[in-house]
Amino acid sequence: MHRYRSHTCAALRKSDVGSTVRISGWVHRVRDHGGVLFIDLRDHYGITQVVADPDSPAFKMAETVRGEWVIRIDGLVKARTEDTVNKTMATGEIELYAQEIEVLSAAKELPLPVFGEPDYPEDVRLKYRFLDLRRETLHRNIVKRTQVISAMRREMSNVGFTEYTTPILTASSPEGARDFLVPSRIHPGTFYALPQAPQQYKQLLMVAGFDRYFQIAPCFRDEDPRADRLPGEFYQLDLEMSFVTQEDVWDTMGPLMTGIFEEFAEGKPVTKEWPRIPYDEAIRKYGSDKPDLRNPIVMQAVTEHFAGSGFKVFAGMIASNPKVEIWAIPAKTGGSRAFCDRMNAWAQSTGQPGLGYIFWRKEGDKLEGAGPLAKNIGEERTDAIRTQLGLDDGDACFFVAGDPAKFYKFAGEARTKAGEELNLVDRDRFELCWIVDFPFFEWSEEEKKVDFAHNPFSMPQGGLDALQNQDPLTIKAFQYDAVCNGFEIASGSIRNQSPETMVAAFEKVGLSRQDVEDRFGGLYRAFQYGAPPHGGAAFGIDRIVMLLVGAKNLREISLFPMNQQAQDLLMGAPSPATPTQLRELSIRPIPPVKKD
Amino acid sequence: MHRYRSHTCAALRKSDVGSTVRISGWVHRVRDHGGVLFIDLRDHYGITQVVADPDSPAFKMAETVRGEWVIRIDGLVKARTEDTVNKTMATGEIELYAQEIEVLSAAKELPLPVFGEPDYPEDVRLKYRFLDLRRETLHRNIVKRTQVISAMRREMSNVGFTEYTTPILTASSPEGARDFLVPSRIHPGTFYALPQAPQQYKQLLMVAGFDRYFQIAPCFRDEDPRADRLPGEFYQLDLEMSFVTQEDVWDTMGPLMTGIFEEFAEGKPVTKEWPRIPYDEAIRKYGSDKPDLRNPIVMQAVTEHFAGSGFKVFAGMIASNPKVEIWAIPAKTGGSRAFCDRMNAWAQSTGQPGLGYIFWRKEGDKLEGAGPLAKNIGEERTDAIRTQLGLDDGDACFFVAGDPAKFYKFAGEARTKAGEELNLVDRDRFELCWIVDFPFFEWSEEEKKVDFAHNPFSMPQGGLDALQNQDPLTIKAFQYDAVCNGFEIASGSIRNQSPETMVAAFEKVGLSRQDVEDRFGGLYRAFQYGAPPHGGAAFGIDRIVMLLVGAKNLREISLFPMNQQAQDLLMGAPSPATPTQLRELSIRPIPPVKKD
Repeated sequence: MHRYRSHTCAALRKSDVGSTVRISGWVHRVRDHGGVLFIDLRDHYGITQVVADPDSPAFKMAETVRGEWVIRIDGLVKARTEDTVNKTMATGEIELYAQEIEVLSAAKELPLPVFGEPDYPEDVRLKYRFLDLRRETLHRNIVKRTQVISAMRREMSNVGFTEYTTPILTASSPEGARDFLVPSRIHPGTFYALPQAPQQYKQLLMVAGFDRYFQIAPCFRDEDPRADRLPGEFYQLDLEMSFVTQEDVWDTMGPLMTGIFEEFAEGKPVTKEWPRIPYDEAIRKYGSDKPDLRNPIVMQAVTEHFAGSGFKVFAGMIASNPKVEIWAIPAKTGGSRAFCDRMNAWAQSTGQPGLGYIFWRKEGDKLEGAGPLAKNIGEERTDAIRTQLGLDDGDACFFVAGDPAKFYKFAGEARTKAGEELNLVDRDRFELCWIVDFPFFEWSEEEKKVDFAHNPFSMPQGGLDALQNQDPLTIKAFQYDAVCNGFEIASGSIRNQSPETMVAAFEKVGLSRQDVEDRFGGLYRAFQYGAPPHGGAAFGIDRIVMLLVGAKNLREISLFPMNQQAQDLLMGAPSPATPTQLRELSIRPIPPVKKD
Repeated sequence: MHRYRSHTCAALRKSDVGSTVRISGWVHRVRDHGGVLFIDLRDHYGITQVVADPDSPAFKMAETVRGEWVIRIDGLVKARTEDTVNKTMATGEIELYAQEIEVLSAAKELPLPVFGEPDYPEDVRLKYRFLDLRRETLHRNIVKRTQVISAMRREMSNVGFTEYTTPILTASSPEGARDFLVPSRIHPGTFYALPQAPQQYKQLLMVAGFDRYFQIAPCFRDEDPRADRLPGEFYQLDLEMSFVTQEDVWDTMGPLMTGIFEEFAEGKPVTKEWPRIPYDEAIRKYGSDKPDLRNPIVMQAVTEHFAGSGFKVFAGMIASNPKVEIWAIPAKTGGSRAFCDRMNAWAQSTGQPGLGYIFWRKEGDKLEGAGPLAKNIGEERTDAIRTQLGLDDGDACFFVAGDPAKFYKFAGEARTKAGEELNLVDRDRFELCWIVDFPFFEWSEEEKKVDFAHNPFSMPQGGLDALQNQDPLTIKAFQYDAVCNGFEIASGSIRNQSPETMVAAFEKVGLSRQDVEDRFGGLYRAFQYGAPPHGGAAFGIDRIVMLLVGAKNLREISLFPMNQQAQDLLMGAPSPATPTQLRELSIRPIPPVKKD
């Protein structure tokens, strides 16, 4: 027989009854039922119930074992009696009658219990992560994460992508977030950087002719810890394709990701045909470029109904500024004064002056709009609004007024709030879409200049001609996001692979050809020597896994995460370097700069 | 029709004749045959021959295109005439008659030609890596590398392993090579390290109950560049298993790697049943723990034949020191004075006093041993040596004398030299084996103390008892290497998962329990809380790919390698940091320490 096991702890079935077998694993728990000991033995695969009574030669040893000891058990497989069969366990029809127990590794008193998964402070969980990871929920999440990634690899291969691994020690990337730096020992005073994303490398791969690239890519950003971001490293499903338009990327990745979601959604519905929603439309309908489409509320402009109306505040705003619009947030089933007042109070709590509303109720046979606004604008306008929005008895509508560029975020929050409060959001589904036609530039109020709105490597719609002849703030980019249930899960674009168009785009934000050469030399050089049209995307793996397992915290789907102070409590990182290390790297720590 | 292509450059066949199609790619070369232009258009998948004659509306454009321009061609698929069919090309039965050509991206004059792959200086190849990677051989090697890695993932999954990704920003590892350090911004004066290997994490995964781990793992060692080592990062197929003996690791990974080799060996034979050769035996037979088993030469001790013989140098050495042995290196077909003298001269060129030999030749009916040694020891002893080694007319034998611990490396080199010079090595095969039973400790002559011979985390054979009661230099470890054609391709062991045995092992090399806690705290702590017996290995992916594609240089199988000075010439790394970056990281570069 094998030194440690003939079967895993999930393997034994009724058909094994009568066999002598050997299993090894962790003592999940021990129960004493009137002098008979029951040990639940656990391994990666499952749990087997082991029994030892005083007649067993293993009884004495069974009495000594404690939770999380690692033991080997030889024994006889017995059928459970009908009333003790456990249908929820794969091994629930049998139990193992222990004949010999060997302790392979004892455990000290546990700083963190495994069985039952009681809540424990996060720092203890991270310091004893090897115990935390034995807990059923986290163990299952981690396994699911690996399965999701494995499925991504499989599906990407199936549609003709090849995984290429790009360097981790590379050059500092002057765009975007803060780099992690690595001092060079051989070249004193210089540094490598860890990649924020393999953006330039994947584009170079296209220029090198590799056609369809993907990578489960580690990315590194030295940003201040945030609740929804782990310090340090994160993973993307990074991909790039040559000789494609943006429709090719959508047609390839939409169905593929739908398949991935369906594989792990445990029966929840997943969007098959992803809507392609222009950025401007998303802002107007949902007040967000990351709309949660499970929320059925769609906003509409109702400016005309307030123009010249008896509600002087809105009417005055409309009259005085052509940019002003009134947006309506229709809230089906929200038609009670209590709910409307709660929404108003919530709006005030976020710093807004308030949230105007109308709600409709039957008065006898008559459908009546209630609330101060309805009174001010009168019956006819109130009913025109109701008709436009398709509302009825028991429904409400909220109104936001002003310059949409300034209020759309709040309007989106109000839409979310109303949808959630009224339970209009179907939580048991995955609603996916593409947000497309992002603006290429935006106005930076701080710097009083035009700046890139997103990825400077994207191709502006209209190309060089648009850059030369169009108001930059009206130029769209071949740039898109994928959104699921209100979270951005991917971002991508068709790239600007023309050196001249690239320089023209950077000139608009105040950078010269020389700047482009200095900052993106590898890529700029490559574009001089035959660069194919190409584009791609990067999907955030952590976010996708969180959605699929329903985790609220990144640490619930990460193997060995750092804490919010960017420390690895298990391994003790970061830590001081030795004088020899510092000397070899030609660096010296200096006291930190004081912040005022 | 699609914006860029209806077919790839490898897709068109005779059955497409008559179709109008669209292809895009790079101009591989242009030929002018009497006014008719032939363009070989290349993409990732293959090459299609395009024709344009003066009647074609695309002719004018065809005259302008140059090598490595990216173009789109619309045209009519025509059958080639019988005498122009190219059977070596997938598309060799057709050609595309160009009707429209669009230049998607022109190319400046090339700093590095793609077509024909002429030799070019390495720094040019690395700076213009995107051109270098278009060359057929390198492009094919890179694709093969990705296929090998993909096959590894597939096969590891097939035998029940799961890929877990371990952190890249981690703690400095006090054993082994030099770490790359990453300054922490949030904790001034402290550093993360990039992992030299995920050794501790994979063992922690076993303690966390994950049972069978693997990873295509990036590893980082800041070592001085060497011909057979790329600066910076390299990749391992890293794996670990719980509840196993070393035989389980061999039984799992031997057949799996044989399968991988066979898949990519292009018909070359691959060892099915890997011999398991104890370290001591490998040293005695091959003079190396990385024996090239394609070389049929097996060394033998022939001490007895020289003891008390007329060859006074050897006889005297044997008489004066019981450690002295004489090893024979039999060299079939090496039986000429010219060859033997050449070997002798080679030995002297490596600093040896010389290389004694006997060679055999027929004198009439008689098989005669020739050379000074044969004369000195006489006919009977000469023939006894010949018989022991199974040599015959036309064969030779070389002799090395002394303390084997001191000469075995040279003996191994002489074995390799003789095998290669005599063409005894069958280059067209892959000979794989396990080298097992490595010594656990070795004597450090520098430090005059016992030290770990290999991995300090390995389990000593005999466990705690051996550590307490046995001469440490006689203790073997459950430690093994995999070797292919003279190269180490993997190293592994069963781990020491007992905290007490771990401390006892470290005490032998002069380290205390406190040292173990300080240096390997995470792992040492984990072993206190129920650690399963476990073991594994790590296979060097770069080396395996080099063997499979027959590459001599790591840069022939790496995508974006650094040069030998650890510089990325394409992206310009390493480079100086900005004052802001240095201030944020609380470090200051200092002048390097002068070396005397």
